[in-house]
Amino acid sequence: MKVAYLLYPGFTALDVVGAFQVLAAAPGLESVFVSHEAGPVVDSTGLFPVRARQGVHDVQDADLLVVPGSDRSGAPDDLLVDWLRLVHPSTSWAMAAGTGSLYLAAAGLLAGAEAATHWSAAGNLAGYGVTYSDRRLVRAGNVLTSAGASAGIDLALALLDLSHGPAVAQTVQLILEYDPEPPYDAGSPAKAPADIDEEGRAYYADVRPPSADRQRPGAR
Amino acid sequence: MKVAYLLYPGFTALDVVGAFQVLAAAPGLESVFVSHEAGPVVDSTGLFPVRARQGVHDVQDADLLVVPGSDRSGAPDDLLVDWLRLVHPSTSWAMAAGTGSLYLAAAGLLAGAEAATHWSAAGNLAGYGVTYSDRRLVRAGNVLTSAGASAGIDLALALLDLSHGPAVAQTVQLILEYDPEPPYDAGSPAKAPADIDEEGRAYYADVRPPSADRQRPGAR
Repeated sequence: MKVAYLLYPGFTALDVVGAFQVLAAAPGLESVFVSHEAGPVVDSTGLFPVRARQGVHDVQDADLLVVPGSDRSGAPDDLLVDWLRLVHPSTSWAMAAGTGSLYLAAAGLLAGAEAATHWSAAGNLAGYGVTYSDRRLVRAGNVLTSAGASAGIDLALALLDLSHGPAVAQTVQLILEYDPEPPYDAGSPAKAPADIDEEGRAYYADVRPPSADRQRPGAR
Repeated sequence: MKVAYLLYPGFTALDVVGAFQVLAAAPGLESVFVSHEAGPVVDSTGLFPVRARQGVHDVQDADLLVVPGSDRSGAPDDLLVDWLRLVHPSTSWAMAAGTGSLYLAAAGLLAGAEAATHWSAAGNLAGYGVTYSDRRLVRAGNVLTSAGASAGIDLALALLDLSHGPAVAQTVQLILEYDPEPPYDAGSPAKAPADIDEEGRAYYADVRPPSADRQRPGAR
């Protein structure tokens, strides 16, 4: 079973590594790192470059597609979006962590569906005809999307549950000792105190400026 | 504030990246990657090499120390253990994810204390005069240890809570949208069903063979 990770400059390292560490602990999965062309691709911090072993022209199919998010602004890269469109028919499952869902949306894989993304990009899905959901994990057919960075671990486990069954998903969860215990219950805009929510928005203000049509995720 | 990440061949990528992604979202932290000498250090899978910018001889102090775990067997590296011993007096906090605690234990930083580690290494702390705890996060003075791989995120948030206060810890949790939702409650030996526990042990059997003195973590 071939897992293709799509890399592009500015990807969030935890989105890739979180999903990878889960999937790599399952039996029989081969990992392929794909980008424009073979070579190192820098993450958002520049400290965790990952080497793409193959360029998009070398990979025509995959069983599982994994698309990480990014905390940079800007539209998805056209060449990579075209590649997703090309490869998608061959895949059993596609998953995107955080704003990786914007790539899947741009490729038309989520048309008319609901999808998750990082809360700061909640307003960016509508332009692709996709409805933002503030649920952590969202399934639309064979496409799975999730909330921000840390959700890649949850999402990859959910994907293993679908692709390999509950015994493998649980065994991998145990192997990684994934029994989360965050010190606070502040991990989503709906749960964070108002002043923390304000701080979080300030952090992303330069990346994804608030716009009139932007919904406050978690607002009811 | 200088955060020094100790790298050694075979480290678990998620231990480093999970902690890093949390700490890098806090204001005013500078990251330093340290190993035997400057150069790339390969992780357990070989796919996420991280470049050590500095060798141990170039770094004499740090405010925060971060030591990742590994799923390889073998004793901690003497040179790196000596370096931990040298640097520790200058640090405000030290943290280890998973079996990184064996490094801190070997350096004498946990003598007579309780510590967490990956469940598969529960039997390996006693030789250093350290008592294994099956809690996810354990604090012994200014040294924090945690359970396996995925716990590095929890631990780094707990550390930020201590070093920067609750507002920063919660804001970073929101930035990373860390609102975990694992599909199963199987992330520790005490919680996993017996057959899953068996599978998990089989996975680690080659790395850390069961021994007579090895306790079953979670057993009461």
